[in-house]
Amino acid sequence: MTISPPMRGFPDAEYAARTELAQIRMAEAGLDAILLLTEPEVQYFTGFQSLFWQSPTRPWFVLVPVSGKPIAIIPEIGASLMRRSWIDDIRTWSAPAPQDDGISLLIEALSSLRTLGVMKGHETHLRMPLGDWERLMTALTGLRVADATQLVQGLRMVKSPAEIDKLARICAIGSATFDMVPQIAREGMPLEDVFRAFRREALAQGADGAPYVVGASAQGGYADVISPPDATPLAAGDILMLDTGLVLDGYYCDFDRNWAIGHADDTARRAYDVLWRATEAGLAAARPGNSCRDLFHAMSAVIAEMDDSGGDIGRLGHGLGLQLTEQPSHAAFDTTTLQENMVLTLEPSLSYGDGLMMVHEENIVVTPQGGRLLSTRAAPDLPVI
Amino acid sequence: MTISPPMRGFPDAEYAARTELAQIRMAEAGLDAILLLTEPEVQYFTGFQSLFWQSPTRPWFVLVPVSGKPIAIIPEIGASLMRRSWIDDIRTWSAPAPQDDGISLLIEALSSLRTLGVMKGHETHLRMPLGDWERLMTALTGLRVADATQLVQGLRMVKSPAEIDKLARICAIGSATFDMVPQIAREGMPLEDVFRAFRREALAQGADGAPYVVGASAQGGYADVISPPDATPLAAGDILMLDTGLVLDGYYCDFDRNWAIGHADDTARRAYDVLWRATEAGLAAARPGNSCRDLFHAMSAVIAEMDDSGGDIGRLGHGLGLQLTEQPSHAAFDTTTLQENMVLTLEPSLSYGDGLMMVHEENIVVTPQGGRLLSTRAAPDLPVI
Repeated sequence: MTISPPMRGFPDAEYAARTELAQIRMAEAGLDAILLLTEPEVQYFTGFQSLFWQSPTRPWFVLVPVSGKPIAIIPEIGASLMRRSWIDDIRTWSAPAPQDDGISLLIEALSSLRTLGVMKGHETHLRMPLGDWERLMTALTGLRVADATQLVQGLRMVKSPAEIDKLARICAIGSATFDMVPQIAREGMPLEDVFRAFRREALAQGADGAPYVVGASAQGGYADVISPPDATPLAAGDILMLDTGLVLDGYYCDFDRNWAIGHADDTARRAYDVLWRATEAGLAAARPGNSCRDLFHAMSAVIAEMDDSGGDIGRLGHGLGLQLTEQPSHAAFDTTTLQENMVLTLEPSLSYGDGLMMVHEENIVVTPQGGRLLSTRAAPDLPVI
Repeated sequence: MTISPPMRGFPDAEYAARTELAQIRMAEAGLDAILLLTEPEVQYFTGFQSLFWQSPTRPWFVLVPVSGKPIAIIPEIGASLMRRSWIDDIRTWSAPAPQDDGISLLIEALSSLRTLGVMKGHETHLRMPLGDWERLMTALTGLRVADATQLVQGLRMVKSPAEIDKLARICAIGSATFDMVPQIAREGMPLEDVFRAFRREALAQGADGAPYVVGASAQGGYADVISPPDATPLAAGDILMLDTGLVLDGYYCDFDRNWAIGHADDTARRAYDVLWRATEAGLAAARPGNSCRDLFHAMSAVIAEMDDSGGDIGRLGHGLGLQLTEQPSHAAFDTTTLQENMVLTLEPSLSYGDGLMMVHEENIVVTPQGGRLLSTRAAPDLPVI
């Protein structure tokens, strides 16, 4: 089965609505414009989608003014693709140009502004040389720079029906791929071959790409959840975990699955059961009006049956969309109020035994009835391959 | 055929040698330490390799002091994996922690230093929140920050034999994958399915991942080289171009191939021939002592037979290694002197007709005899599928 999207991208109205809502909040915050430098934000406001972001060489700039369409200030190599978007004002330079990589164009575009929003808070990066940023600030001494992180993240957290449709499709592809793992993986198979076969299956199921595949396989549990694979063969008694971010038309799934190879001991079965029930508690708590902290505590209360250390992952899930991980965080520090149509991961984890851990993950939409699953719910008992 | 590496990573001696050379240059430059924040640099000095960098949530810091091993200041979620590296001093915090995402640990580590190197030049990003960087600088008012871009890029440009071995392996996998395209692609096949099949083949050939696959297929040539695919079927008279960055154990290939679907017109054949010969000129010029500018002019002289516009890609190739694109750039502005064992792409391109373009790309090692191909040389005449 191949699940394909009916179309790529969105109608212009989707981008216009996003921009309009941003502009309402910019006006409230007293911002003349917001300068965006990072892939998901540029894609969110323009629809510009390219794997070329993997090359660090060239900076890309999009300016969202408080009224009117966004303005693209980009390397000439991207002009043809950007012209297919809903954006009209596209200014380019022949990049790379180390002496002036878009800085003159930026100064010209920003010189008449008084207050500029820039994303400089939690979970952001400055995707341009720091030296160029300093040059820009030196040239624009009259410009007030305000942090626009919460404004932009706040928009992106709540998904439109069209975005949820794309997320549902890639989650369905992820679920179909995980369903094939018992036919792919077997005792004796090197873990790196399991990863490769998993990626091939995800593409066969219709994913555009399988950029994120991590996991582990080790006796009775695993020591971490971010490792690349090696050639160690799957062994009886292993717990195999695969965690994947697959992508379709720019939107990600992000969930994992666990299997026992050959047989599982009681501790691993119990850990699995605790995490499965922690996820149930998360699903029930994922309602508008609850906070991320509430969601965290609902899952933690179940996890505490077996592990009261709080784990070392730092949170029990997060937002999901154009990025593998987005705001908010299900953690005690995050008091973000859940809203209908937020798309989230529920990711309870626990530690046990001698440095072992286990992680479960599902993808959901927040609804008044609680979390609606986008991923096909994991089996209630630890499956054995 | 699956080409697999004999082992993952490198012996500790490789990282020790890299660190030692960095420290010699740091001492010459008067730097007490270099602070690294980005994936390829952290991997270069520690061997830490994880796809988890795709999550923007957590910053990662590695401090290379002027003597002694590097120090990792990282989220707890990465501690287990970092402990498998040659690094001994690993300091962690439970991230994400928006109020203090490693900043206190950084301040403690940096407070005794006088001069800190940071990469803030061309082709670099600040992979931490700008607001946190500003907090750090405010807390360390006595610290002098110097630009370490050229120091670090200068080290990374010249590859060790062990690195060249890994690069040769992934280039061989890329070549084997391109060889299969005439069996994968056919008239009538949607371009997005060609991309998916190409990625699956790359994994079957032994790549760990196929993160970068871009290209196009259009009548007589294509309009840009960074687009994602859509469902448009390949048509007779199209020029199909696929450009790929495949990865094996952290090292990338980056080259492309062109095919005509069904038949090709004379202009496309001529463009192909000019670019093939421009690559020959690049191979001959890729000797120690020549500069990147020389390499650029050698290829440009041939390209000018058909196109004297200079194109809109901005350069005719670049460095290659832990990143899809690295320093240096084959451009008139780049006077970097070529050194033996630099690994480069040769990427001549030209524009023709009504907004069409064509790009060739090969991967090479600089030797006293000129460029030694890591990719299997493209056919001298435009192949027809």
